[in-house]
Amino acid sequence: MGEIIYAVLQFAGILAFAISGALVGVRHNLDLLGVIVVGASTGIGGGILRDILLGINPPTSLVYWPNAAVAVAGSLVVFFFHPKITRLRHFEVVFDAFGLGLFSANGAAWAISISEPLLTAVFVGTITAIGGGVVRDVLVNTVPGVLTRELYAVSAFAGAITAALLMKFTADIVLASAVGGALAIVLRLVSYSRGWQLPVPRPAEASGVSS
Amino acid sequence: MGEIIYAVLQFAGILAFAISGALVGVRHNLDLLGVIVVGASTGIGGGILRDILLGINPPTSLVYWPNAAVAVAGSLVVFFFHPKITRLRHFEVVFDAFGLGLFSANGAAWAISISEPLLTAVFVGTITAIGGGVVRDVLVNTVPGVLTRELYAVSAFAGAITAALLMKFTADIVLASAVGGALAIVLRLVSYSRGWQLPVPRPAEASGVSS
Amino acid sequence: MGEIIYAVLQFAGILAFAISGALVGVRHNLDLLGVIVVGASTGIGGGILRDILLGINPPTSLVYWPNAAVAVAGSLVVFFFHPKITRLRHFEVVFDAFGLGLFSANGAAWAISISEPLLTAVFVGTITAIGGGVVRDVLVNTVPGVLTRELYAVSAFAGAITAALLMKFTADIVLASAVGGALAIVLRLVSYSRGWQLPVPRPAEASGVSS
Repeated sequence: MGEIIYAVLQFAGILAFAISGALVGVRHNLDLLGVIVVGASTGIGGGILRDILLGINPPTSLVYWPNAAVAVAGSLVVFFFHPKITRLRHFEVVFDAFGLGLFSANGAAWAISISEPLLTAVFVGTITAIGGGVVRDVLVNTVPGVLTRELYAVSAFAGAITAALLMKFTADIVLASAVGGALAIVLRLVSYSRGWQLPVPRPAEASGVSS
Repeated sequence: MGEIIYAVLQFAGILAFAISGALVGVRHNLDLLGVIVVGASTGIGGGILRDILLGINPPTSLVYWPNAAVAVAGSLVVFFFHPKITRLRHFEVVFDAFGLGLFSANGAAWAISISEPLLTAVFVGTITAIGGGVVRDVLVNTVPGVLTRELYAVSAFAGAITAALLMKFTADIVLASAVGGALAIVLRLVSYSRGWQLPVPRPAEASGVSS
Repeated sequence: MGEIIYAVLQFAGILAFAISGALVGVRHNLDLLGVIVVGASTGIGGGILRDILLGINPPTSLVYWPNAAVAVAGSLVVFFFHPKITRLRHFEVVFDAFGLGLFSANGAAWAISISEPLLTAVFVGTITAIGGGVVRDVLVNTVPGVLTRELYAVSAFAGAITAALLMKFTADIVLASAVGGALAIVLRLVSYSRGWQLPVPRPAEASGVSS
């Protein structure tokens, strides 16, 4: 039972990120394969990066076909039905938030489950969550949103550290992934809808005496 | 004999990609070392990515000097003789197509030869072929052409799957690399010259009732 | 004693690169976490790339917390005190040059110390030095400076080859790192202040007969 829930959480993360990536591809007017490449890269890119960092070769998503199949299926749905999807505003942000939360918590919990130390688990969870989106943004040549969006990396970090700590104390990977993921998703969506921002640097001029 | 042909095919792929990368560097007016860096990164970048994914450390091209030597030599030729090369129009596309075809087929055939499953081989071949060009385009800060050019990724994918299947049935890495590579090169060049494109998404406005 | 000096050289490289990355983040008006992400990625990114290439999983900086702590501390100092830092002109270039020199020499010397061949050591040192800056520039979506700045990659290459050769002959990692690093820093700063450039390609028009 736990295994099934865990697999569902993983596929949900891949699907959510693939949809967000394919929506970006559609907005950039890419062709069918371009949309699939961006969607699939966003969906499985973070996990591939995680496996490279942890020395799992070849990365799971290049061996285990359901991961890629889910990512491609999500991209195809967007390609053919995107007018219905984009009509619902903010959907891109919502799917991205689900991918972010599920990946950060899952990645961190999984790293603890293979006996990596806490610091490594938090790093790996955060990188897994952010990696797919960075690949997506670099592919379409925009500034990676992770650096500018409302509490984006903070949400991933909070989800990863929560999941890693829960794993340390309960060793329950489903519980850790679900709670850490939910926290990250809520934090990201609330900060998006409220427009919460971290402080920006004081402008350099402010240190001058007068204008 | 087979080994020699295989090595020649590999060097041809590295050389073709290095030339295409160096031509891009020259067009962006980079200096001598910039042209060498972009050329060499394009020539050996895809193979390094392949080795990272398959867990071959350090990557072959960082240990076996002829790979880098061929890539640097190709870049130097372009730097000093590029007016003659660029005079021949479309040469950049032609060299890039040869690199694409040779790398996709070679990468896939090689992955099968070390007992990776079919899916992994096709992924690895495609990533090897596309990787060098993505590195090149990211270095000069343009949208990676893989997402927008005529049947670019399709050609790499077709070459990789053909080579992987031939390897499965014949176990002849030279045959698989040559046939898969030739298919990808022809497909890419024909689609380039004919302007073949995959379908693009329906515009979102098309779903509205009227303007 | 040697070990302490070596550790200090490593931390100095991470700190120098983190400061240069955070300064770029401040100039792009990123928020607190954005500045930390760019600063830390620049500080530890090159080393992570080095560890991936050499098959050290997980990369040292994701396991050994002082590396990340130094990078985050440097980024925080820049975030809160940057008006004082940016007032001193050219500081970004100076910190970047120290990171470049220390990383290229350190990376090459360390690769020799674990019995990698000379070619691999020079490649790894150069990639370690350049990698952090490339990550920084890609994150903020600018053309990586490595391709356009005065003798940038040349300096890294010179530091790496000097350190690798010294290691081969003396097996003294502190001496090799210090001498190679100093050479790269001096070469980079002198070429910056004098505006030294490598030759650029002849314009294609120059090969024509007349205007």
